[in-house]
Amino acid sequence: MKLLGGRISRLSHGLVEITANNRPSFSQQDGFVHAGIMATLADNAAGYATLSTLPPGSRVLAVEFKLNFMRPAVGDMLRGRGRVRRLGRTLSLCEVEVEARQNGKWITCAWGSETVYCIKQKGTQDITSADRRRESHVSDESRT
Amino acid sequence: MKLLGGRISRLSHGLVEITANNRPSFSQQDGFVHAGIMATLADNAAGYATLSTLPPGSRVLAVEFKLNFMRPAVGDMLRGRGRVRRLGRTLSLCEVEVEARQNGKWITCAWGSETVYCIKQKGTQDITSADRRRESHVSDESRT
Amino acid sequence: MKLLGGRISRLSHGLVEITANNRPSFSQQDGFVHAGIMATLADNAAGYATLSTLPPGSRVLAVEFKLNFMRPAVGDMLRGRGRVRRLGRTLSLCEVEVEARQNGKWITCAWGSETVYCIKQKGTQDITSADRRRESHVSDESRT
Amino acid sequence: MKLLGGRISRLSHGLVEITANNRPSFSQQDGFVHAGIMATLADNAAGYATLSTLPPGSRVLAVEFKLNFMRPAVGDMLRGRGRVRRLGRTLSLCEVEVEARQNGKWITCAWGSETVYCIKQKGTQDITSADRRRESHVSDESRT
Repeated sequence: MKLLGGRISRLSHGLVEITANNRPSFSQQDGFVHAGIMATLADNAAGYATLSTLPPGSRVLAVEFKLNFMRPAVGDMLRGRGRVRRLGRTLSLCEVEVEARQNGKWITCAWGSETVYCIKQKGTQDITSADRRRESHVSDESRT
Repeated sequence: MKLLGGRISRLSHGLVEITANNRPSFSQQDGFVHAGIMATLADNAAGYATLSTLPPGSRVLAVEFKLNFMRPAVGDMLRGRGRVRRLGRTLSLCEVEVEARQNGKWITCAWGSETVYCIKQKGTQDITSADRRRESHVSDESRT
Repeated sequence: MKLLGGRISRLSHGLVEITANNRPSFSQQDGFVHAGIMATLADNAAGYATLSTLPPGSRVLAVEFKLNFMRPAVGDMLRGRGRVRRLGRTLSLCEVEVEARQNGKWITCAWGSETVYCIKQKGTQDITSADRRRESHVSDESRT
Repeated sequence: MKLLGGRISRLSHGLVEITANNRPSFSQQDGFVHAGIMATLADNAAGYATLSTLPPGSRVLAVEFKLNFMRPAVGDMLRGRGRVRRLGRTLSLCEVEVEARQNGKWITCAWGSETVYCIKQKGTQDITSADRRRESHVSDESRT
């Protein structure tokens, strides 16, 4: 994330956005942002979105990653969004999206999913219960 | 690719490898290379592998991308490989792989596929025929 | 679709649902509906959703398919939904979902995407213009 | 698998093939085997390939599934193949392939991957050690 100069611009339970200024070095010869840059933003957002649902001190690992490229990304800013759609005991399934800001308007350029492996920090009984409540919350959300 | 300092280390018809020195800025807090860096190497390799089968002047666009992370990537060098498994009139299907060199041994860390859209440079009849021969060559390879 | 006894239960521009009664032969030894049955429902829905945006007489072919299994599917009815997220000149990107009805409530069991290749029926200039209008309509929808 | 009339035609550690006679009900209006049928064969093969590496009594669940359709499937027989590429403590990553037999020759029609969740049967220390040996065997294979 440091490599891209990204910053967390939105953070709630199970939803994280990472925003970065677009740079010439992010683009290919045709001026479109590189697929790998979009993948990096999306993967970061999915990881942090999952972490936001886990006890403090937990860690995450990407299991697999699927991104569909919908439109060439051009513009002055980029934004990756990760949203937990399903949180299980060891795996989190996230929806990911990458947007580019063109003429002040955010356009979806890539969309997909990431499966994240959760290494939960073990804590006191209290933390575990809170964690369980959070889990069911996310699960309910993902049904709507 | 410039951002990563990558260079093409292998190039044949339908097969390209891109190698880069690993750097601290490529890794997360736990010392593993970031999924986005691996995605970038794989996507680059898939694009060039497809280009290697098209007439000069052709362009490629990533349609979609799927990467499975098999092992944490640590080591002094990284290598992305793209191989055309199926070349159609407008789409190329590539197998992609990312390896890391640990103690002199290359270990597969990520594996997956990429669908690439081909914008073929239109040329003379001769070029078109050569292109067709190459196409069937790749198709035959992918059957084995 | 005949094999599953499915029927189209919802059809609008770019959105199709296919519903089928669950059967013992759809389930594995543990009583959960087979991943392949869910894949079949999702793929059918994506194909019809894409067709609903194309001129009459057009055909579709699946390019690739990604399905995430979120919860075991049990219940008396199954429903596959396909929604066009992005319609290009030759490719359609669909979001797919499979739900199962348990105790009268529909639960999402699988979610993912399908890329569909469109073989458009060529028609009169009028049809082409109408088609173009529809394209931009779907594209706009997918931005929201 | 019963629904398709499939049978296991090859079974070794981490590799399973399932073969089925093609039937008119498997095909769409254009005579090509339905994507859902290919997905079912591939998913079955991945599940059994994973089971072949686990202690007796273990169970498997599909986590996610990605299939690329390379050629229309026509012919008298169909074959799904699953091969474990990476076996971890809880997840197995399989490569999957579907072939159709045309004029006596097997042609690859679909190729992709499946992530499988392993619910291992707990046994004696002896079984666990054997299991560990098998794990490293599969891992070694997947490095080649």
